[in-house]
Amino acid sequence: MTFEQWTRAVLKRVEAALEHYLPSEKTVPEQLHEAMRYAVLGGGKRVRPLLCHAAGELTGARAECLDAAAVSLEMIHVYSLVHDDMPCMDDDALRRGKPTVHVKYDEPTALLVGDALQSQAFITLTADVLSPAQQASLVRELAVASGSVGMAGGQAIDLASVGHALARPQLETMHRMKTGALLRASVRMGALAGEAPGTDALKSLDAYAAAVGLAFQVVDDILDVTTDSATLGKTAGKDAKDGKPTYVSIIGLDASRALAQQLRHDAHAALTPFGARAQRLAELADLVVDRVS
Amino acid sequence: MTFEQWTRAVLKRVEAALEHYLPSEKTVPEQLHEAMRYAVLGGGKRVRPLLCHAAGELTGARAECLDAAAVSLEMIHVYSLVHDDMPCMDDDALRRGKPTVHVKYDEPTALLVGDALQSQAFITLTADVLSPAQQASLVRELAVASGSVGMAGGQAIDLASVGHALARPQLETMHRMKTGALLRASVRMGALAGEAPGTDALKSLDAYAAAVGLAFQVVDDILDVTTDSATLGKTAGKDAKDGKPTYVSIIGLDASRALAQQLRHDAHAALTPFGARAQRLAELADLVVDRVS
Repeated sequence: MTFEQWTRAVLKRVEAALEHYLPSEKTVPEQLHEAMRYAVLGGGKRVRPLLCHAAGELTGARAECLDAAAVSLEMIHVYSLVHDDMPCMDDDALRRGKPTVHVKYDEPTALLVGDALQSQAFITLTADVLSPAQQASLVRELAVASGSVGMAGGQAIDLASVGHALARPQLETMHRMKTGALLRASVRMGALAGEAPGTDALKSLDAYAAAVGLAFQVVDDILDVTTDSATLGKTAGKDAKDGKPTYVSIIGLDASRALAQQLRHDAHAALTPFGARAQRLAELADLVVDRVS
Repeated sequence: MTFEQWTRAVLKRVEAALEHYLPSEKTVPEQLHEAMRYAVLGGGKRVRPLLCHAAGELTGARAECLDAAAVSLEMIHVYSLVHDDMPCMDDDALRRGKPTVHVKYDEPTALLVGDALQSQAFITLTADVLSPAQQASLVRELAVASGSVGMAGGQAIDLASVGHALARPQLETMHRMKTGALLRASVRMGALAGEAPGTDALKSLDAYAAAVGLAFQVVDDILDVTTDSATLGKTAGKDAKDGKPTYVSIIGLDASRALAQQLRHDAHAALTPFGARAQRLAELADLVVDRVS
């Protein structure tokens, strides 16, 4: 199977699983459920679900188990986008090529969509396909990665940094929390959804995830200045306009491009212990670095 | 032990457990952690933790297990208060006798405090004191009670109802979701933190929780028109001012008082199968009905 075929097959599974694990828009309260589905379905690169499924190949995880983990990760990711786009945060009107939730609906709905998606992620992780022990360990991974020492904490540091000259180590701490923690959880949760991985395997996966997570952010910063809004599906040039520190603003465009290539190399190197079973993870590192949107 | 002594002992445990399970304000990001602690600590009636501890007496749950469950419930409750108080929702400046989080800090901080408290609740529930099977079942109870068919969904219906004449059945559906679901989870989680309760026991507890949950709301509506802001620790008379349907506005003050007494009776009746072991739950039903703030 080529990487493209594998990706297409996983994305098809994940879309069906998202459809399954999201409440129906015929269930009360209908409008909230409709808005949750609007936010999640039909858009997005699904990087976290792909990482989760790829990591599951290392531990022989069943596809149904990976679907539940992948869906929970995407729900957390989308809730963070919905809240980040709100007027009191980044105040953005465009996301995944569509009006953001507070524009399409209203601010209270956007707030509740985010809140309810976070709950829905944990509902999803306690689905019967996973053993109780897996449910417990995956919930912990996801909750820690989402919370105040993970994604939400990174967002707090990001907001506090607007208009300030962050040094590169602080910028890396911020990104490690804001986007890195959930990407790391994607890889770990995929592995944990199968036969219990050893400590060494988890360490290698952490090293891989750290490189891919940072590469993801560096490439985001590059695309923000080199690509138009229509291609990105979100407002381009926004970081510079908002005075946010980025890799491009700190080390320049050429050095950022070189850094992305170095991180791709680091990600591949971390996968060495797994041999051919890590092929999809290696290809996903390439996808993250080579993407154009 | 008198009820007052029991209550004081439980509240002391719960405050210590909240202190323990909340991230330190010395941990990065310090300001977010400080704001999370500001929102949670030193205030609140802790009704959900009390219900949780009282229900745990029926199944011999260990106090440490009940602490974790109680803390997770209070974190979810407080996150909902922080988000509900935001300008795009109820826009309230006073909560538990203190400035609300977005007033004391700012709106983005309030948004992130709520988001991170929700994650922290699930981090807390996956603490080692609970068995993996208990962690999984408690996470599911809490997530379902918090999400779109529980608390967040009830809030969505509440917002959509402003300025509309809700009939009493719709009002009850809204409250059963908005506050009832988490009160029900408080009782069920307390019981599930001990020896697995049977289906019949859980059914009786659900009936008890339904009566107490509704009584809680009816009394809230009575206090909103009969008590001043200083006593309530939040803005009094707000529901009427906002055009929100309440029990008092639909059935009147006297009928609301009679309803609260009827619900107290229903709550006590539901506890009959448990005998003397349910003493604290019975006393808590009285507390909910007789409270003056």
